[in-house]
Order: sequence, then structure tokens, then C-alpha cells
Amino acid sequence: MAAGQGLLLGIDIGGTKTQIALGRADGELLREAHLEAWTSGSFETDLETIAASARSVLSAAGVDAAAIEAVGVSAPGPLDPVAGVIRDAPNLPGWHEVPIRALLERALGCAVRLENDANAAALAEFRFGAGRGARAFVFLTMSTGVGAGLVLDGRLYRGARYGAGEVGHIPVVPDGRLCACGLHGCLEAYTGGAAVAARIREDLRAGAKSAIRELVDGDLARVSARVWTEALRTGDAYAARLRDEWLDRLAQGIAILVLGLDTDCVALGTIVARNTDLFLEPLRARVAARIWPRLRDTRIVAGELGERLPAYAGLCTALLEPLEASASPSR
Amino acid sequence: MAAGQGLLLGIDIGGTKTQIALGRADGELLREAHLEAWTSGSFETDLETIAASARSVLSAAGVDAAAIEAVGVSAPGPLDPVAGVIRDAPNLPGWHEVPIRALLERALGCAVRLENDANAAALAEFRFGAGRGARAFVFLTMSTGVGAGLVLDGRLYRGARYGAGEVGHIPVVPDGRLCACGLHGCLEAYTGGAAVAARIREDLRAGAKSAIRELVDGDLARVSARVWTEALRTGDAYAARLRDEWLDRLAQGIAILVLGLDTDCVALGTIVARNTDLFLEPLRARVAARIWPRLRDTRIVAGELGERLPAYAGLCTALLEPLEASASPSR
Repeated sequence: MAAGQGLLLGIDIGGTKTQIALGRADGELLREAHLEAWTSGSFETDLETIAASARSVLSAAGVDAAAIEAVGVSAPGPLDPVAGVIRDAPNLPGWHEVPIRALLERALGCAVRLENDANAAALAEFRFGAGRGARAFVFLTMSTGVGAGLVLDGRLYRGARYGAGEVGHIPVVPDGRLCACGLHGCLEAYTGGAAVAARIREDLRAGAKSAIRELVDGDLARVSARVWTEALRTGDAYAARLRDEWLDRLAQGIAILVLGLDTDCVALGTIVARNTDLFLEPLRARVAARIWPRLRDTRIVAGELGERLPAYAGLCTALLEPLEASASPSR
Repeated sequence: MAAGQGLLLGIDIGGTKTQIALGRADGELLREAHLEAWTSGSFETDLETIAASARSVLSAAGVDAAAIEAVGVSAPGPLDPVAGVIRDAPNLPGWHEVPIRALLERALGCAVRLENDANAAALAEFRFGAGRGARAFVFLTMSTGVGAGLVLDGRLYRGARYGAGEVGHIPVVPDGRLCACGLHGCLEAYTGGAAVAARIREDLRAGAKSAIRELVDGDLARVSARVWTEALRTGDAYAARLRDEWLDRLAQGIAILVLGLDTDCVALGTIVARNTDLFLEPLRARVAARIWPRLRDTRIVAGELGERLPAYAGLCTALLEPLEASASPSR
């Protein structure tokens, strides 16, 4: 395919929102659609919803499905990109062992590629955003959970079982906090949005004084990482103490990546990207304290794509080479 | 080059021992030489010693230098494999900014490739030893220091600044023990041979009871990781407590690699390879406790090459594609 010429369809599937984008390999976005509160409890119905929306995007753009070079689906994992199956998607009710590639290929009549959302986002930031020009790039999602995509030597690195990048679950504290995944001391247990919210609820129940209690009108169910960042902006001392620990653990995780992989660029999404004023400079200082001087030219930056990330994640997935069964793990 | 046909010369440089091997790409070893207590304090003299030994190996085998396809030099880092320069080698007196490739090419009249010893060892175990067939292979040196080589998707992964694999210095304990490298809480500070010996000396000076004191006749300068393993074999309780912590931290480091890189095989050298009875099974159990069930088919094994490792490390370096300056870090 001549770069930038072929038409691509990108589909980024998420529990609260799904985005569909028609575009080209050079990043030109021609048309987009968003689905919100769209899940039904049945993956068959949900995939019909997605396919109908994709057809609307194409017809609104006056494009025939036959003109689409490939459809890229960025979806929550764990998934098998070779078989084209989503194994499990905790945020999508009823999605279990979903043969999404076969179903969407039948519904749309186009070749479909599947990739997990963290990998697809890393490819998007590498190609169009914060990771351009990096030789060893890591994108950390920093959302409810913490995922990562690794683009090493210009290629997506998927790992032996297509499971690379579970950086949210590397143990950073020996015998540390219990993570939602069942392991102890995971990076995500200290820095994931859901874990931060759970920690705040725990502390408030134990009597911690914080402006957060007023910000949620005493309703602990409303506590979230977003409310935490609001409290940080009011100068709340409890929120600031939590930030110190959050930054320390995140810096430790990034130091592990820089030392182990010799990354030259780490970009951070959601929580960091939306609050660079609160997090970026102190994070950089804490990473620098944990790595050698000769590695300190590593760029620690916010993701640049913001609201466009899902669209680009889908398009970048469409650009991936098809995976052969022979490319599956050798054992 | 037809695989297995061309003649290769491998040179593995170490502070206490240097090995020179004549062989072929298929792993056939034709002739070897060893240099011990060979350093002079001057890298120029030391390189003349190496070149003279290499010429002896060739002449003893009746091989002309012109018949050698490439010479591979596996050496301690940090080094620059593109420029062919060893930046620093703390265990080689007088070795600083050594343009070893140019000097050996002139001395031997053959093309020379340079790679750091951990990477070269990983390639050797991947091609001829414990890592055969792995899709995402990590070799941990487990010697005086802890280094790693990463062979991902069948290729040596070098990182953005040719510094990948500094797994010995990933922080595994927040604000943990001071490492010889100046950072805190490094994996090596808990599991490197020198760190273990230092820790034992510290504890013995503080009055710890252990058979180690008798094994070294009260001379703490003689304490080493080897003496520790001897004490473990006598059932010494102090040595066993130290092993618990050693295994816990090493298992944590391996869990970080398995989760972050989705490795399917981790092989361990020196201390583990020589003492599989003391370390391997309890290490596997501790790794399993720190990763998800679906990752537990990861092989955790001892390196297989033993005394042949340096020879293969040199030969595998000779087999590397030459690095172009254009392949150097992009920034």
C-alpha cells in the first residue's frame, strides 16, 4: 500500500465509549463516530451496533466498504491477535471468547486486524504523537488500570504469548498492597486510577482528613482519581501526601523500564496527560534520582494525542502486518 | 555465509580470564586458548597479548587469518558496539575509552564485531543452550554483578543507547540497600555475588553466628558467594536466611521480566548454574507466586553452556550483523 493513500477504518472499543474513525495511513482523519453507553450485555448485539455505526461512517463519507484496505480493532485484553479473539473484557458485559475478527470481517466484508488497546495506543503515540523518533518507546496508559505498549526498534513488541507490556503488574513493593489482579505490590496497586480511588476510600473510612470528603459530599462511591486531582489543586495536604507516594512508585516503575529496556522515551496517558501541571516535573525529578546520569536524557512526557488517541489507535492497528498462525508462540 | 561453513574467531574478555576460540557458526569448536592473570595495567599491552594468543590459535589450527569471516569480541561494558569502543571496564586495569575494534582489526587483519558480555552470553545460550526455541529469552548472568541479555523475537535487543539489559540495577526495593552503582534498592544489591559477600561481612562484623566464619578461618576478606553456597550445604541457618531473601528478590526481578516482557524462558548463569540444587526449585516456586497462572509455563532454568559459554559468546558475537553508524540512537 502506498503510504497515506489507502483508506483505513479504525475501531477503538471501550466499556464506556467506542470510537470509529475513517482515515489514512498518514494520519488524516476523514470521518468519526462515537458510541456511548452502547453495551447490551450480548457481544453479538454489541458487534452489530459497531458494524452498523461503521457502515454509517462509510456511507456518510461516500466510501464503499470494498475501498477499505483494512479495519483495525483496538480492544481491551487479554486477547489473541493471531486467532482474532478477545478472551475476556471485564468492562464489556457478556464479552467472553469473542471471535471478533471473524464476526466483523463477515459483517463488514473487509480484512480485520485486532490488537490490545495499550499496544494500539503505543503505536498511535509512536507514529503520530509523543513517541515520534524514539528508538525504544514505552507508552503507559495511566487510566483506571496501568497498561503499557512497547515499540522497540520501530516495531510493536508483543512478547512470547502476546502478553508483553503488563507493566501495571510488575511487583514494585515486596509483599506490598494487594492488587485487583490478585498479586501483591503491583505498580497498578499504587498508581492505577481505581487503586487510588480505593485507597482514598479506605483512608477516609479510617478517618483521614481531606477536602475530598467535601468534594464528594460525603458519598465515598463518588471518589475517583479525578476528584483526587481536584483536591490536589485546592492544596489538600492528604491528597499531596498520596501524590508523593504515587509519584515515587510510578518513578520506580519508569526507572525499571529505563534501566531494563534502555528506553529513550516514556509517554504517559490519561491521568498524567490531563494533569501535566500536577505530575510531570516532580515525576521527572524522581525518575532522574533512580537512574544513572547517562540515562537521564530519556524523555518523560505526556501523551500528545489526547481525544484523538482512540481514532489513531484503531488506524495504527489497521496498519499492522497480518499475523500468521506460524508467528504464534513456538512452544 | 553458508551456515556452519565459515571460520570464526571468538574472544571473550574478562578481568580474571580471557578465552579465545576458533569455531564455526554451527557451534563446532576447533581450537581454544585461555589467558589467566593476563592484564598488565595497559590496554595496548593487553590487546597485544590477546592478538598474539589469537595468532597462536590460528597457527596451531593451520588456519590463515584471511580465512576468518569475522572476529567476535565479547567484553565487559559499558561499550559502544557501533564505534567499537569499550568505554570503561572496571575489572580491567587501565582500560578506558579503548578503540578495541580498530586496534584488533589492525592487529589481526580481520573484521571485528564488539558486543557486551551479557548480550553475547544471552545470544550463546539462545543459539546453543538453554534458550533454544524461546520467543522472548532473558539470560541473567548472576555472577559478581547481575547483568542480562534480551533476545526478543529472535533478535538481540540492544536498547536506545545500546544499554538494554541493566536488569541488575532495576529498583526492586523502594529506598532499599545502597548498590555499588550508587543507586538504591537495585536487584544486584540483593542478588549479586559481590553484594552478597559484602552483606555477609557486614553481618559477621555485627556478630552474626554462621559457619561462614569458620569456613574462612575468621578472615572476612575471604568471604565470597562461593563460601556462602558451601555454608548452605552444611545447613547453616544464617546462610539459609540469606538465601530466602536472595531468592525473594531474584524471583521479584524475574516476575518483573515475565510480566513486563512476556518472556517464555529465563536462564540463569554462574551462581545458579553451578548450584541448581540449592536455588532452582525454590526460585521457581517464588516466581510462580508473583505472576499470573497463565504465565507460569515460563521456563526458569539454569544456563546450559557452563565452561563453554565464553567460547560461544565470542563466536555468537562474530555472527552478528555489522552495526552501521546509521543504526545508532536517533537523538
